[in-house]
Amino acid sequence: MNIKELGGEFKLIERITGRKISDKAVIKAAGDDCAVLEYTGNKCLLVTTDMLVAGDHFSLEWFTPEQIGMKVMESSVSDIIAMAGKPKYAFISMCLADNTTVEFIDAVYKGLYASAKKHDVLIIGGDTTHGKNIVFNAAILGEADKTLLSLRSGAGEKNLICVTGTLGGSKAGLSLLQAGRKGHTKGHLEPKARASAEAVIIGKYCNAMIDVSDGLASEVEHICEQSNKGAEIYYDKIPISANTAESAKKLGQNARDFALYGGEDFELVFTVAENNIGKLKKEFSDFSVVGKILAKERGIYLLRKNKKSRLKKGFEHFNT
Amino acid sequence: MNIKELGGEFKLIERITGRKISDKAVIKAAGDDCAVLEYTGNKCLLVTTDMLVAGDHFSLEWFTPEQIGMKVMESSVSDIIAMAGKPKYAFISMCLADNTTVEFIDAVYKGLYASAKKHDVLIIGGDTTHGKNIVFNAAILGEADKTLLSLRSGAGEKNLICVTGTLGGSKAGLSLLQAGRKGHTKGHLEPKARASAEAVIIGKYCNAMIDVSDGLASEVEHICEQSNKGAEIYYDKIPISANTAESAKKLGQNARDFALYGGEDFELVFTVAENNIGKLKKEFSDFSVVGKILAKERGIYLLRKNKKSRLKKGFEHFNT
Repeated sequence: MNIKELGGEFKLIERITGRKISDKAVIKAAGDDCAVLEYTGNKCLLVTTDMLVAGDHFSLEWFTPEQIGMKVMESSVSDIIAMAGKPKYAFISMCLADNTTVEFIDAVYKGLYASAKKHDVLIIGGDTTHGKNIVFNAAILGEADKTLLSLRSGAGEKNLICVTGTLGGSKAGLSLLQAGRKGHTKGHLEPKARASAEAVIIGKYCNAMIDVSDGLASEVEHICEQSNKGAEIYYDKIPISANTAESAKKLGQNARDFALYGGEDFELVFTVAENNIGKLKKEFSDFSVVGKILAKERGIYLLRKNKKSRLKKGFEHFNT
Repeated sequence: MNIKELGGEFKLIERITGRKISDKAVIKAAGDDCAVLEYTGNKCLLVTTDMLVAGDHFSLEWFTPEQIGMKVMESSVSDIIAMAGKPKYAFISMCLADNTTVEFIDAVYKGLYASAKKHDVLIIGGDTTHGKNIVFNAAILGEADKTLLSLRSGAGEKNLICVTGTLGGSKAGLSLLQAGRKGHTKGHLEPKARASAEAVIIGKYCNAMIDVSDGLASEVEHICEQSNKGAEIYYDKIPISANTAESAKKLGQNARDFALYGGEDFELVFTVAENNIGKLKKEFSDFSVVGKILAKERGIYLLRKNKKSRLKKGFEHFNT
């Protein structure tokens, strides 16, 4: 059986991580952005690991080595930040090809260090090996206040679904590059994780949080699955930047589809009780309300001009 | 410049990890088997990350998927054990090829879980992606008593250099497989890390410790470099199993060369003050004395029938 027949990446993860963990120090194992472990006092230890592959997560043709390094770091710290955590230590493994130059690696590390510095992360370990294809793995350790820790599983009925910034910029940039068109490609080549300080503020008010790795549709589905809920997404409220709108128009495509099914924007999706929205806004305002959590029986759907429609699938490895 | 011209894998690691770390919680960054962080009370947190690549660390032709899983886990926990630590949590990233079957992954995980169970390790996270080549990355968290923590940098002059078990079995098995010969190949296909409990005993008496990843010669060089010392290795004392001796004879090769330059035996190399050897032996006896730490000026050399000779280089990616 191939992985596509099994039902794709997420079914595979369910299959291999289905074992019960009975260790009191493990607060949360697989199934969220990070694993969560007991740490010191009221802090928990967050651990995430992300693998990025040449030709899949980054193109050696389109990305500068520095941009590759930044993307490796931004995409990985984003998982810690999505738990309302503070990323602290990074461990970078690299599989390099025989023809990889020292200059290439220097430039990748320049990007890694630049992004690490921005997020106040120290690179303190790793592994170097070689193979046919360039692959990076970043393991990141971070910490979070137990009281702020924002799992995917905490969404409550009638919570509002919010997203930071704007969405779809990564997919818009990728689509331009794939079409050989010029334009706003930085959303794809230089995606940025939100600042930990922002996520910590959100963590004070939200019940669930996740970062946008695979598209808004997929992230809302993850929250609903872990929280045992349904949801409606307000299609016209999905925030799109002027650049992304311009790119979509240029390509004859739909910017909101980029947002829903594109992924890799590394913005945050979170759910907040309605009476907390005002309080949050006083401290942090760069977010939009894009939907509402419903009872599980209601399912998950898009709402556009009072018309319901089903979600398509977001980006999945093995299903593309 | 290619990596070989730079001087290989270890020179590259020096180049990219040369930055000074000024964080009091970081006891040891790159340059040892693990990074070491402050943890709770008298425990420190150990973190290691290892990448294993199809065609490089394991052959899809020779290894069963279960053996691949075991090797990923054994080689990674070995780095924690080599610090006199206890491995606790594993995070497995996988890059799978388009034609990788679910059955293959099930069997890899069977091996991962079998080895994890033996070492009392929980697999609590990971990442799954796809690319041209199969790659695994294991990030392992563990802990060690601060008083037992065994870095590479602690070797003292006149310390005896010891190794657990026997060496060269992995290289002997690989050489048989490469030559298309039958025989004792399990040393290569199923290498085993030592038990953490053994390393904890050794940790009470040793001043420095490392595991055999790249061959005895390379490991002694690492200890000497980090400890700013020299060393002599007693060629005839290097412990070889009967199986490895038989394989070497069959291949017309030298079993002690397998031990010195082969690697991946995951035995432990450690240095002990002479007056502690007897005490250690009472608690743990499966080791041999194979050399002595010297002043740095004496250099590092092999001693065979009172004749000194230089060490060759151990296994290095990019230099083969």
